[in-house]
Amino acid sequence: MLKVPEHQVAGHIAKDGKLGPLVDDRGRFYKPLQGDARGENEAKFYESFSSNKNVPDHIRGYFPVYHGVQLAEASDGSGKLPHMVLEDVVSGYVKPSVMDVKIGSRTWYPDVSEEYFNKCIKKDSATTTVYLGFRVSGLKIFDCQESRFWRPDKRVVLAYKVDGARMALRKFVSSNPSADSVPDCAYASEVYGGSNGILEKLLELKAWFETQTLYHFNSCSILMVYENESGGDDERRAQVKLVDFAHVLDGNGVIDHNFFGGLCSFIKFIQDILESSDNRCENGH
Amino acid sequence: MLKVPEHQVAGHIAKDGKLGPLVDDRGRFYKPLQGDARGENEAKFYESFSSNKNVPDHIRGYFPVYHGVQLAEASDGSGKLPHMVLEDVVSGYVKPSVMDVKIGSRTWYPDVSEEYFNKCIKKDSATTTVYLGFRVSGLKIFDCQESRFWRPDKRVVLAYKVDGARMALRKFVSSNPSADSVPDCAYASEVYGGSNGILEKLLELKAWFETQTLYHFNSCSILMVYENESGGDDERRAQVKLVDFAHVLDGNGVIDHNFFGGLCSFIKFIQDILESSDNRCENGH
Repeated sequence: MLKVPEHQVAGHIAKDGKLGPLVDDRGRFYKPLQGDARGENEAKFYESFSSNKNVPDHIRGYFPVYHGVQLAEASDGSGKLPHMVLEDVVSGYVKPSVMDVKIGSRTWYPDVSEEYFNKCIKKDSATTTVYLGFRVSGLKIFDCQESRFWRPDKRVVLAYKVDGARMALRKFVSSNPSADSVPDCAYASEVYGGSNGILEKLLELKAWFETQTLYHFNSCSILMVYENESGGDDERRAQVKLVDFAHVLDGNGVIDHNFFGGLCSFIKFIQDILESSDNRCENGH
Repeated sequence: MLKVPEHQVAGHIAKDGKLGPLVDDRGRFYKPLQGDARGENEAKFYESFSSNKNVPDHIRGYFPVYHGVQLAEASDGSGKLPHMVLEDVVSGYVKPSVMDVKIGSRTWYPDVSEEYFNKCIKKDSATTTVYLGFRVSGLKIFDCQESRFWRPDKRVVLAYKVDGARMALRKFVSSNPSADSVPDCAYASEVYGGSNGILEKLLELKAWFETQTLYHFNSCSILMVYENESGGDDERRAQVKLVDFAHVLDGNGVIDHNFFGGLCSFIKFIQDILESSDNRCENGH
């Protein structure tokens, strides 16, 4: 009944006998609670967040719905393991373009081990994390001109510098993402812009992060999704979700300036694309 | 004609034959251009900033006026040295309370030497820089109840944790800063609040930093000043100035998310003090 997710772009992948998340056909995402503290910390966050009366309703929608922890057959054949049961964010999409962007100018945080600090600082400096306050962690874009998904190799994605990150964000809303030519940003105004677009949602999140001192979202990602299958209403169903909470800490009255600064830098990139593209809606489908 | 500044709270101090900034009696501050790249970088920043047409006029007021580089007798007796001639921010104040707050969750930046990185990360972690996105670097507060200045030792200030930083920001606007009792925040509403208060100025700066991509203000400080001498109009003359530009870099189209995040965290602290204090104006003078 559970199967490997088709549209996962970052994190552990459940294939070749490895442990990773699974999905069912009813829109649920099963994320294995690994043996270490990270899995437990993430489940603890979801428990706390779900019942936290101080989180405004309109903000709750930016997080996957949490259905508790359940035993499920692990993807690596190791038998039944506890899994967090979450909303499958891409469920119901036919041809979703998906991008995972890790927010923050650092992924480490006070009181981590020296080993973890060294690992993080190395990766944060090698990617755009330090310089931009975010890094693209993974992406999969439906190429409407070629009628197929385009997905660059993980090593290519993690090697993006400033220009690479900017290019990926342009390709994400283009009908020709896999071409060597200039990305046309054909869907920028529909996907990034407009009252249901990604920018509007990011600005809503930003307003919350400006003052929220409940949680520090260390090493969290923003997942962006939209639909490429043209339906009756031509609705892109652009979505923004926060994911990956293994390193969330209590805010203790301090705003999450690391996430907030990175989010605002990311928003500036999206605004720049919206401003620079003519946004003629020459959708390729 | 030049003398050691009376109200300098951080940085190199020109006394005991050391090299440091000097002031004249006409409101100018002479900062020696040290032999290394930092002095040159700071002068280069002032040159660039002074002539940058993209800086809005209302933002220019948050920076000391720059009068160029002049040769002046160095404070360490080494003869004539080039000095940046700047506006003396506390000139004209009789009993100024002054606080220097270094903004940002890191003081290092991409491409610095390993030695500098190690020095910074150590200090950033030992102080509140990493956790709060700012650290108090120095302060000198006029105690109206005792009629004298109170100035904690530099080592004490740099050892502040979260509670220490919050306490210092409360003492800064209290009539009893040197007492062991709870700071009364007697001047919070006058100094932090109001249309000429510090919060309003910080919010104006914040609005600029939200989108400005001209400069990255690594390792810069916000200097806060106000007057304790009661004059005819009881005006506090609360001021906010950005100072210390030895590590400023070009923004290259990216917002300064490090400064911006820290600034917003700092703003939240000021707002919390304004909200928690009853703000009865029982000035001690």
